[in-house]
Amino acid sequence: MTAPGITEALQFALDASESVRGTTSPNPPVGAVILDADGRIAGVGATAPPGGPHAEVRALAAAGDRARGGTAVVTLEPCNHTGRTGPCAQALIAAGIRTVYYSVPDPNPIAGGGADTLRAAGITVHPGLGAEAVLQGPLRAWLHRQRTGRPHVTWKFAASLDGRSAAADGTSKWISGPESRARVHDQRSRLDAIVVGTGTVLADDPWLTARLPDGELAPHQPLRVVVGTREIPTSARVLDDAAPTLVLRTHDVQEVIAALGDHPDVLLEGGPRLAGAFLAAGCVDRIQAYIAPVLLGAGTAAVEDAGVSTIAEALRFRRERVETVGSDVLLSLVPERDA
Amino acid sequence: MTAPGITEALQFALDASESVRGTTSPNPPVGAVILDADGRIAGVGATAPPGGPHAEVRALAAAGDRARGGTAVVTLEPCNHTGRTGPCAQALIAAGIRTVYYSVPDPNPIAGGGADTLRAAGITVHPGLGAEAVLQGPLRAWLHRQRTGRPHVTWKFAASLDGRSAAADGTSKWISGPESRARVHDQRSRLDAIVVGTGTVLADDPWLTARLPDGELAPHQPLRVVVGTREIPTSARVLDDAAPTLVLRTHDVQEVIAALGDHPDVLLEGGPRLAGAFLAAGCVDRIQAYIAPVLLGAGTAAVEDAGVSTIAEALRFRRERVETVGSDVLLSLVPERDA
Repeated sequence: MTAPGITEALQFALDASESVRGTTSPNPPVGAVILDADGRIAGVGATAPPGGPHAEVRALAAAGDRARGGTAVVTLEPCNHTGRTGPCAQALIAAGIRTVYYSVPDPNPIAGGGADTLRAAGITVHPGLGAEAVLQGPLRAWLHRQRTGRPHVTWKFAASLDGRSAAADGTSKWISGPESRARVHDQRSRLDAIVVGTGTVLADDPWLTARLPDGELAPHQPLRVVVGTREIPTSARVLDDAAPTLVLRTHDVQEVIAALGDHPDVLLEGGPRLAGAFLAAGCVDRIQAYIAPVLLGAGTAAVEDAGVSTIAEALRFRRERVETVGSDVLLSLVPERDA
Repeated sequence: MTAPGITEALQFALDASESVRGTTSPNPPVGAVILDADGRIAGVGATAPPGGPHAEVRALAAAGDRARGGTAVVTLEPCNHTGRTGPCAQALIAAGIRTVYYSVPDPNPIAGGGADTLRAAGITVHPGLGAEAVLQGPLRAWLHRQRTGRPHVTWKFAASLDGRSAAADGTSKWISGPESRARVHDQRSRLDAIVVGTGTVLADDPWLTARLPDGELAPHQPLRVVVGTREIPTSARVLDDAAPTLVLRTHDVQEVIAALGDHPDVLLEGGPRLAGAFLAAGCVDRIQAYIAPVLLGAGTAAVEDAGVSTIAEALRFRRERVETVGSDVLLSLVPERDA
């Protein structure tokens, strides 16, 4: 049993972590909460952009003297190394923290080991608090990159019930509903990069920006990445100055993956052949399918050329979540290999 | 507020109704429950096959003398006319029933008016009990046929997340999971007819029978209907003697609809062009889409040629239900025109 105050603190830490997603790479988007000796929330912090303080340090700064004798709740094991900032484990010790809860261990061989340092200083350490929510949520992409060395790629598509992303004449505005489109904009604002093919740029001329419900640009914009060997016009919206854009003149998925470098949380938005290439290469780590209650019976397929010629080769996934978004259904899936 | 005994009786009546679906055409599959004067269940009945007694008469027979001073709960307004059996309204009056609850009015101008007859005999009548469950459930197809003169067509398909019903080489066993296939067999056993195209017969050689989980034939088998102008071999499984089969040498949806005559509850199972023709003709009244967590990226589309060339012409539906069936997701939709 965890005390109610700790559960509440975890939720604050998760929210803080979520709020800085997309802005911290290559550092993880961590959330931290400091409770005073009486168990009241004294400070909340999240990872600052690279070069700025880590979550624990910011939460400690907010708590001030109230941290002494208190408890820290952190979504990731406090780091143990001096990088651009000092080790968080030392900061917690120096502030007089008595107890530390954290969600997931730091897999980084350089930064890890913070829990041992805390214990050696006489602090009581509880690992694993809310681990599942953190693993599936804000730290998912960063942990994936630590584990595999590759960015975490979510392939998002919107399609009709019969799997088409555009009608026979190429029109596609709108297959999915306004609620789904708003959801995607919110998601974009918390990502490191969005990837599309040149075909999508030529067909739809998208901005690929993250916009708020009022149409304004969101404070954080992901890197826009255009993949393919076809020429795109300099007037393409994706080349405007609303966000940085990377144009990769290749069809090779591994080259794209390598070029994404320090961008762990990537959204692949299409088109069908680029999605097929990522799928065939085993480089899709999650699918988000917005299925609209619409039939087309002709038009562009959501995915093509995924390397499957017979049913035994079908790419199989495990259902992670089903939810309704306006009139659409959002299916979230992960590869069976991750089951 | 409805008394708990009445709510329970309604559930028994719904279950009785559901249990005879597919076996009563052209009569509706009605369920009836008789409560004695103390509110205890005295008899349950459902419509017998054509020529046999109606639900109320069977429930009254089961209740015997306990019906006197009691209450009847029926899913459809008791009929008022003497057809192959006597009017149910008269039977309820003769048995000494004091109160009648029914779910939906009988739209049939010949059989309707039972409620008035009951009231004229001094019986208290409560219409509308559980109307929504009955309208969407066991009486849906029959009421649709009464209202429109056409059978109620449910188009069922199983597809990958990208809308394919077979891989590039034509293989399709199995896209959907065992739970979904068992569900379809159970559904078939409560239908009047199953419709497929000759292409499906030639490609898959299906039996189109309803089988129990142990592989045995279900007691009731729907009429098997094969539509199209291509020749099918006399050795086709669909022509075996497990169930009757109707071969319609036409591509015309209206001819198929006309030929289905007294079969109000029809399941359209494919293939893609036949489904497209039914959709284009506005002759699909419900869609049941089993979406499997699988990607193919090539192969046969679930539906083709639905008469849509641009997004503004997309066939739009309203979501009725989303449920998970094993690892698949079942989406039930109805046309927006029915919204």
